[in-house]
Parts: sequence; structure tokens; C-alpha cells
Amino acid sequence: MTNRSPAPDPTVIAVDAMGGDHAPRTVVEGALLAARENGLRLLLVGRREVLEREIEELESVASDLDRIEIVHAREVVGMGESALAVRRKRDSSVRVCARLVREGRAAAMLTAGNTGAALVAGKMVIGVAPGVDRPALAVTMPRRVGRTILLDAGANVDSKPHQLRQYAVMGHYLAQQLLRMRSPRIGLLSIGEEVGKGTELVREAFKALDATGLNFVGNVEGRDVFSGAADVVVCDGFVGNAILKSAESLAEFIGSQLREEMSRNWRTKFGYLLARPAFESFKSRIDYSEYGGAPMLGLRGGCFVAHGRSSARAIHNAVRRAVEFCEADIHLKVSAKLSEVAYEAHSKAVVAG
Amino acid sequence: MTNRSPAPDPTVIAVDAMGGDHAPRTVVEGALLAARENGLRLLLVGRREVLEREIEELESVASDLDRIEIVHAREVVGMGESALAVRRKRDSSVRVCARLVREGRAAAMLTAGNTGAALVAGKMVIGVAPGVDRPALAVTMPRRVGRTILLDAGANVDSKPHQLRQYAVMGHYLAQQLLRMRSPRIGLLSIGEEVGKGTELVREAFKALDATGLNFVGNVEGRDVFSGAADVVVCDGFVGNAILKSAESLAEFIGSQLREEMSRNWRTKFGYLLARPAFESFKSRIDYSEYGGAPMLGLRGGCFVAHGRSSARAIHNAVRRAVEFCEADIHLKVSAKLSEVAYEAHSKAVVAG
Repeated sequence: MTNRSPAPDPTVIAVDAMGGDHAPRTVVEGALLAARENGLRLLLVGRREVLEREIEELESVASDLDRIEIVHAREVVGMGESALAVRRKRDSSVRVCARLVREGRAAAMLTAGNTGAALVAGKMVIGVAPGVDRPALAVTMPRRVGRTILLDAGANVDSKPHQLRQYAVMGHYLAQQLLRMRSPRIGLLSIGEEVGKGTELVREAFKALDATGLNFVGNVEGRDVFSGAADVVVCDGFVGNAILKSAESLAEFIGSQLREEMSRNWRTKFGYLLARPAFESFKSRIDYSEYGGAPMLGLRGGCFVAHGRSSARAIHNAVRRAVEFCEADIHLKVSAKLSEVAYEAHSKAVVAG
Repeated sequence: MTNRSPAPDPTVIAVDAMGGDHAPRTVVEGALLAARENGLRLLLVGRREVLEREIEELESVASDLDRIEIVHAREVVGMGESALAVRRKRDSSVRVCARLVREGRAAAMLTAGNTGAALVAGKMVIGVAPGVDRPALAVTMPRRVGRTILLDAGANVDSKPHQLRQYAVMGHYLAQQLLRMRSPRIGLLSIGEEVGKGTELVREAFKALDATGLNFVGNVEGRDVFSGAADVVVCDGFVGNAILKSAESLAEFIGSQLREEMSRNWRTKFGYLLARPAFESFKSRIDYSEYGGAPMLGLRGGCFVAHGRSSARAIHNAVRRAVEFCEADIHLKVSAKLSEVAYEAHSKAVVAG
């Protein structure tokens, strides 16, 4: 902990250039866009010779390059590899990113690679905030007005009731900071709205959430992720991941099917052309590439996970969002609140265990 | 078992007129449509005086009524009630429906009411097929070509590995019958595709599924519910329900948002009018009301659960699909196959336990 700098520059993000399905190309391209269009400074982490060649091939202008510093990392944790490979691969890009955050050289890390590896690197190297068992991945889902926070979206499986309670607390403070809500409604994902419905985990977690003093609205169902019945939906990472991945896939499927149906004849084709601005406006509301990465909450520094299939634009947006997050200190405020809650729970047993 | 008739008329469905958010009105209306447009015979189960009044108000013609027989049931299990109320409420509409199936007066029952109550009534009254621990709710999800079967979609929570194996076997035979596939690909829902990823349940179930001799393609992710990477996706009912409900809600949200965006100005409005046939054609592919009810597999008779918010048209379609199902004996073939598998497993240990 001795080498942790107290206030890293919030605009410096360590980007894992080797993580993601289209890495390093799209990651490098996205980073260059962030440097050029937003004047952001980035640490690009990965094999130096590979990254230099990519940058050269992208014919970047010199002014962009002033803002990009390559930090060499010899190894890579692959998408299909066990997250535990991070322990062995001390010089992997994801672990070097985490080290840069720990050392205060970057305010946050961003990876489109293996989520499990980001979690392990975050826990091992950046460190977990006091009062947190397990960091959680928070995603925001669209709804008619505003957005709903869903967590955990896949950092952890087989969560315990008190861990779901921690996710609820993290979600509460994230919603306060990110969605500017005073008293966000917290819902517990279950299979029916009535008390007592759901798995054993949910029934126990219900009691734990009910005792937090948060604005707990009880059980919610899968449909409420998009309905607005709660501002924060709490669940185990296995379920959260299933919802997130199936929702992304369904949205893509609907988009592709609509385009296919529209292209069947001249009438619908013309109709599509006219209605196109509406489609685009809508797409920007639900497209994950607009929203950037998902924050891993409960760490002592910033950690953002972008979609594995991120395009250059998605990486660009993810970098911008990460900077906004860090400038507003959102993740650190959430972690600080968690420590307070944990302290209070310890000394006054305010939060039921 | 003495009063079970061996071959009920496959076109007679017992419809729970009191089940669903808009019951009895929409259920009665849907049943009348099925009688009028398809000449089907129905047993309409619920409070006689209420149903007679509904039928009168709907100004049905005499020829429809010949095909509708009201079966009086004094009680109702509400949507929010515990499923176990079925045990106490011996004269509830859902339980009377199950009794009609058991007695061979109907080939199947259909309810848009409490899913848990349908499960309990099905297990208690219709009876579970040999070799089955827990019946599973199977839903079909749209994909580019064909459909994917997802089960369990919410009948059971906290499933054991060998129960997931049973769902896989049921899904296999359902896909053979319903989707006309010789060797459907079975996927196990997890958080990553690699072996060893997922919860403890998934890791154990992986071994059990791998030993079945089915066309097991390993772990699949939430996105594969719509991708076509597997024909049958197996999961615990808690997760399956979360996926189903969130997908329905997202599809509705996308539809309403698109309409809203389209109505912003005259250009997009006109475009929408022209493209409307494409929208309608697409909607019919993903709208649950087109697909009717979901079969509860693993029972000794037919049991179908329709969406709680079913419209009259949805009920009408659900009745038609249930009749098709019963005419092809699909659910009974699945149950019969399950008994065979269980027998083989018992005598030859073919299926790993």
C-alpha cells in the first residue's frame, strides 16, 4: 500500500490494449480517438512492438501520440483462459493495468478482455474496499425514462445473502451518484413479487436487504429490469450475466430481423429510409457501445469492463465515460460509503448480517 | 389412477377461466373464439354464475355455446397467492382443470393464472411421469431460423444437477417432436462457454449432461438463447424465468420506444406507415400471444401455462396450440421417452446419475 498515490489524475486511464475480441486493433483505434477528439491522456498497455505497429498502421498524427504512452506488458490473459491465470501471469496486460491504478499512475483501468481476469486483477492488485467481500459489476439498462442499474452483472457466482446486501448498498450509492437520485428504489430479483417467493438465497437476502434502511421495494421480476419498477436491481452474477447477455442478443436480433423485414419490398424499404432517424435515435439509447464500460464497484480504484466485442467507437466512449466517472470520483465515493456502512454495522449493528 | 381414461379426445381442453390478470373476461372471450373459429370443444372452469354472465355479455351465438361446457369451480387461487393454496382449495378452478385431465374428460388443461399453482395441481392431480422428479416449463424463443427451446422457464427453483439432466432429456424429446429435429443440440446455460465456468450447480450438471449420450454441446451463454448456438437451452427455473421475463419486457420496451421515436415528426410517421407490414410481420414472430401457452413437461397429461397478461387472442392461440400438441401426442411422447430413459438408467446405468 506504500506506493499508492492519494490523488491520481482523473483523466489518465490505463487501457488494456490486448483485451477483447478485436484487440489490439480496435482498442488502439478507440484510444487514439479519445486522445484526438477529447484530448485525453492514456496509458496503452500491451506488447510494445505490437502496439507500435498498430499505431503506425493507423497513421496517427503526432499530436495524438503525445497523449498516448505505451506501457509494455509481455503477457496476455486470453478470453477463454481461467481468470486465475492472472496470478501466474505477473506481466499480463490486465495485471499491469491494475498495477498502474494501484501506483496512482492511472485513475482507472479499462479492459474489454476476460471479465474474470479483470476481477482477479482488481481484487489482488488494486485491492478491495473495506467492508466489501466481493466487487460487483454494475451495468445500466435502458427504460422509458432514465436507466436502471443491474448488479452483479457477472463478476461473481454463488453469492451469499450478505453479499447481495453489499451489492444493494453499492447500487444505492452508485444510483445516488450516477443517476442523481436521493433515495433510489432497490429491488431484489426473484421469480415472483411476493415475499417468500424465489430461491433460498433470495429469501435470506430479502431479510438482509429489508434491514439495511435503504429504500428496499422488495422482490422484482425479470421484466422490471426494463420496467422502471426499481432503480437498482440486485442479483447474483450468474443471473445478472444471463439477463445482460440475453438482452443484448435479443436487441441485436430484433434489429437485424427488422432490417430484414424492411428490405423485403420497395414500399417497406422506402418507409425504412424515411423512418431511419427514428431508428438511429432509438439505437443510440439501447446500444451498449454508447454506454462504454461497466464499473467494477467495491475496489480501491477505478476498474471498467467493456464489452468483449467492443468497436473502436465503443472503446472511445468507454474511455470518456471512465474519465467522467473518475472526475466525479463516483467509484471512490461508493467505496468510501461502503466502508462507513461496514464500520457502522460493526460498531452499532445497524446493518443486519 | 383407477378413473384415468386411456385416450381422452385430444381436441377437448379444460380452460381455467379464472386464471390471469384479465380473467375471466379475456379467457372466456378467447375460448369462444376457439369454439367459433376452430370448432373446438372446451370445458370452461370457474364460477358458473360469473361465466354465464360473461358469456351473455359477450353476446355469443348459440352455435358457439354448444361447444362450451361450463364446469363449476367455487374457488380461485390468486396470482399473488402461494402455490400451496392448491392443496387447501380443493375446488379451485386450476385444481378442477387438473382433475378433468386426470379423469380423461380433457386432453389438457390451460391456465393463464398462477404458474406455481398450475405446477402443484399438475403434480398432485395429473401426476408426474415415471422417471421425473420435477416437471419443467418449456418455452420457445425466436431466432433467425427456427426456434430455441428454453427450459426450465420457471416451474422450479434450486434445481439439482440430476434435475437439470432431466430437463435436458425432456428438451431433447420436445425438440424432436416440436421442431422436427433428429439430434437437437443441447446447451447448458452458464456464465462462460469453457468447461468449469459457472456455478457449482452448472459444473456438476455439465458432467451429468455429458454422460447422457444426447447431442450435448457444452456450456452456452445468455446470448445463445437467441443466437441458435443450441436448440435446447437448459437452466434452473429461477434463471430461465429471469431470462424469459426480461426478454419479454425488453421486446415490449423496444416496440414502444420505436413507436414513440417514429411519431416524432411527419417524415418518420409516414415512413412507419409504409414500413408497417414489416413491423407486423416481425411482431408476429416474437409476440408471445402468437405462440400460446408453454407446456409443462413431465406430467401424465397435458398442462399449458399461458402468459398472465394474455389477451383474448392469446388465449385463442394457446387453445389451438394445445390441441395441436395433444393431437400429435407430443407431451405424452416426451413423458413416455422419459420413462424409458429412467428404466434404462435403472437397469443398465446408461444415464449417469
